[in-house]
Amino acid sequence: MGSAGTERRLRSDGERSRSAILREATQLATVEGLDGLSIGRLADVVGMSKSGLFAHFGSKEELQLATFEAARALFDELVVAPALERPTANERIHRLCDNYLQYVQDAFPGGCFFAAVLAEMDTRPGAVRDRAIAFMDEWLSLLVREIEGAQAEGAIRREVDVAQLAFELEAFLFLANAQFVVLRDAGPIDLARRTIEQRLASSAA
Amino acid sequence: MGSAGTERRLRSDGERSRSAILREATQLATVEGLDGLSIGRLADVVGMSKSGLFAHFGSKEELQLATFEAARALFDELVVAPALERPTANERIHRLCDNYLQYVQDAFPGGCFFAAVLAEMDTRPGAVRDRAIAFMDEWLSLLVREIEGAQAEGAIRREVDVAQLAFELEAFLFLANAQFVVLRDAGPIDLARRTIEQRLASSAA
Repeated sequence: MGSAGTERRLRSDGERSRSAILREATQLATVEGLDGLSIGRLADVVGMSKSGLFAHFGSKEELQLATFEAARALFDELVVAPALERPTANERIHRLCDNYLQYVQDAFPGGCFFAAVLAEMDTRPGAVRDRAIAFMDEWLSLLVREIEGAQAEGAIRREVDVAQLAFELEAFLFLANAQFVVLRDAGPIDLARRTIEQRLASSAA
Repeated sequence: MGSAGTERRLRSDGERSRSAILREATQLATVEGLDGLSIGRLADVVGMSKSGLFAHFGSKEELQLATFEAARALFDELVVAPALERPTANERIHRLCDNYLQYVQDAFPGGCFFAAVLAEMDTRPGAVRDRAIAFMDEWLSLLVREIEGAQAEGAIRREVDVAQLAFELEAFLFLANAQFVVLRDAGPIDLARRTIEQRLASSAA
């Protein structure tokens, strides 16, 4: 193999290592907080030197933002992408909610990564807080878009207030996550699932 | 005045000082977290020596628990007590929700004290977390009791699932708080108020 092959392999190892580090970082962040994610603390967990981690992430904020993007990629993979494969907007809404409730239980030790970051950063202005707000907006916009789509399909009644229904669905998901994390009990997840099904049924055309 | 009078006055000053310190502590906790509430940090804010504060609170956990109780007393004063004065359970439910949404905007710089503590402590076992879980249970039990009361009064239909309606109301309140804190905008508060009124109207007998 020539030098191009060697270089490619090195870059690939670096990428693998970076993604392995970020996987640990997302897990840690839902338990100890994104602010607890110092380069020193992460170095302990992944068994690397602090200088080795500095080569990957130049600052704590850079590490926090990279961790956020890694969590977002997992969220897309587990929650959004499989829902968007469904043929109708109405099915996509049900799947987005179901997938979210499954992700809350499976993906991280401290429940939803984004709910944890939002609660932690809500009163701390900065790039991470801006990113968390943008994520929340995108998620709510996705729900709004699919509800509008379901109205266009004739599955949800035209007179339903779209922003309000999106707020309601998000409220059930958000509280289910908070109660699940603190109680470590699937009861709130089941209750949210039932509530969402009923709420969507009562909006059906 | 004899020594009993002097002693009473001293104790009274001590109590006043303790409640003034705890008022600062509750404000600080919704912004910097209950875990950021070290005796050293609080000493800076209230302009006292660390040893002076240690005379009031022997440990960080004792300070955190005393701060929790101070926030709870304010919650009772602003949210619960004025609602419980209403003559019917149905009115009490509306007032509990309304008062909560007002308290979110007025009481602390970082929104609801208990939502902030729950999010912060959800993955940290200990006396403070236990206290936060007990508070959440008491609040949900209060909603459940009043919904049952409204059913007994004939204001809410008998076939309404009480635990589910309490979960729904709490979900709207909880998300409104989170969005208000992060966006500093009353939009989510108004949306929650409208949603709650409609939800209660749809459960009315």
